[in-house]
Amino acid sequence: MERNILITIEYDGSAYSGWQIQPNVPTVQGEVQNALRRVLGRDIKINGTSRTDAGVHALGQRASFHLEPGIPTERIAFALNNALPGDIRIVSAEEKEADFHARFSAKGKKYIYRMKHHVSAFESRYFYGVEEGLDMDAVHEAAKIIEGTHDFKCFEAAGADPKDSTVRTIWSLTMDRVREDGSVCGSEDRSAGYDLVVMGDGFLYNMVRIITGTLVDVGRGRIGAGDIYEMLEKKDRTLAGHTAPPEGLYLAEVFYGEDDQWKTHV
Amino acid sequence: MERNILITIEYDGSAYSGWQIQPNVPTVQGEVQNALRRVLGRDIKINGTSRTDAGVHALGQRASFHLEPGIPTERIAFALNNALPGDIRIVSAEEKEADFHARFSAKGKKYIYRMKHHVSAFESRYFYGVEEGLDMDAVHEAAKIIEGTHDFKCFEAAGADPKDSTVRTIWSLTMDRVREDGSVCGSEDRSAGYDLVVMGDGFLYNMVRIITGTLVDVGRGRIGAGDIYEMLEKKDRTLAGHTAPPEGLYLAEVFYGEDDQWKTHV
Repeated sequence: MERNILITIEYDGSAYSGWQIQPNVPTVQGEVQNALRRVLGRDIKINGTSRTDAGVHALGQRASFHLEPGIPTERIAFALNNALPGDIRIVSAEEKEADFHARFSAKGKKYIYRMKHHVSAFESRYFYGVEEGLDMDAVHEAAKIIEGTHDFKCFEAAGADPKDSTVRTIWSLTMDRVREDGSVCGSEDRSAGYDLVVMGDGFLYNMVRIITGTLVDVGRGRIGAGDIYEMLEKKDRTLAGHTAPPEGLYLAEVFYGEDDQWKTHV
Repeated sequence: MERNILITIEYDGSAYSGWQIQPNVPTVQGEVQNALRRVLGRDIKINGTSRTDAGVHALGQRASFHLEPGIPTERIAFALNNALPGDIRIVSAEEKEADFHARFSAKGKKYIYRMKHHVSAFESRYFYGVEEGLDMDAVHEAAKIIEGTHDFKCFEAAGADPKDSTVRTIWSLTMDRVREDGSVCGSEDRSAGYDLVVMGDGFLYNMVRIITGTLVDVGRGRIGAGDIYEMLEKKDRTLAGHTAPPEGLYLAEVFYGEDDQWKTHV
């Protein structure tokens, strides 16, 4: 019996031209498929949930693929990790029903965007450097306006198919000052920064990075919190803020809704 | 008056083919010299203290260079950091006496080698993955034997000039279990590992990585602590342990002995 396998993948996106396989450049999908070929001796195409951009990281990317009898499901993660580079790790593998699809079955996703005031040499691929002293009251007000169901065209990068719907629901959007030390190295206090956490049923191209840039611009006073209403209504990308760089962005979690766990986040 | 400038440099060596400038590949020295050219409008050759290998990191690399009047010394770090990639940071710049040289004036150096039991996707460029349960009593016994003044030829990689002396003094060598969390990301407990810290008046090519590999092999029981005497005496590289990979190695500090600060480490 052919199995339908769902894997959870953690990766440091620094060295990759994004998730989606492309000729002649290293991609995360390409590395996972190479590892599958080495372990199984044949080509398998995997379907990832999110096409993360170059330099974007994942704590919980998902991908599904069909697998003929052979390697036990509980051995897949171990076998793939032995064949993968160290910056891509298979966290788990599980069997799903036949019609499950990592992308189309997803009910929603959670992204984290990490910012720091002082970015050391060891943090430049993992944080966006943002100055201290943002107006957090204005940031929180703007975040509340963005939450909910809206046409988010103003937060979409150019190039998308104009026929596709740009209506999405953001369940929750927070941006808070954080003090936990996430640094690999360093003696001075480099811990202070901001974490943006956003959960929703779907995200347009570059949407999280444009929302992040917009909230930072609100914090800087360049955009008023109340201006969010206008940019949403006019669906005008030029009214929104800058696009934050890819290195601070982490695909944190994908929700499939089976155990209603995701609803606790709504 | 021409100034003699000493800079302290922190870098993530992941993306570089080591410190020393080479044609057609990115190097840390090359990037710093490019930044100097952009800031000053002319070519300046800098002398680094340590020729770190590809993938090796630095918390406190040093380099000196001569500088004509112009940019104030206290502005050098800021100006260079604006011109450098984010994974190379100038920590400080100071003026030294005319005959000072970052490499030849150094009295000693401190290296740290970082190991972890569970290396996440985000840690693979910064830690060496080593299993739990090493025999730390044997490791500590072996480290004590290595300390002191010896001919360290058995810990030198092939390729060095046989006419050069291989006698060095290791002031201090420790390897201890560490629990501090150095990880950028992660939910499970990934904090446990070992830190090796070594200080001495000089190090042969790959010496710290071979000492690390030898101590790990002692911890695994593949080499007896007492075997260290024989490998030192016979000056035989094949009796020592494996060469630990570059990604766990950090040039931590360079001692110039001016304020006797380094002597507190002896």
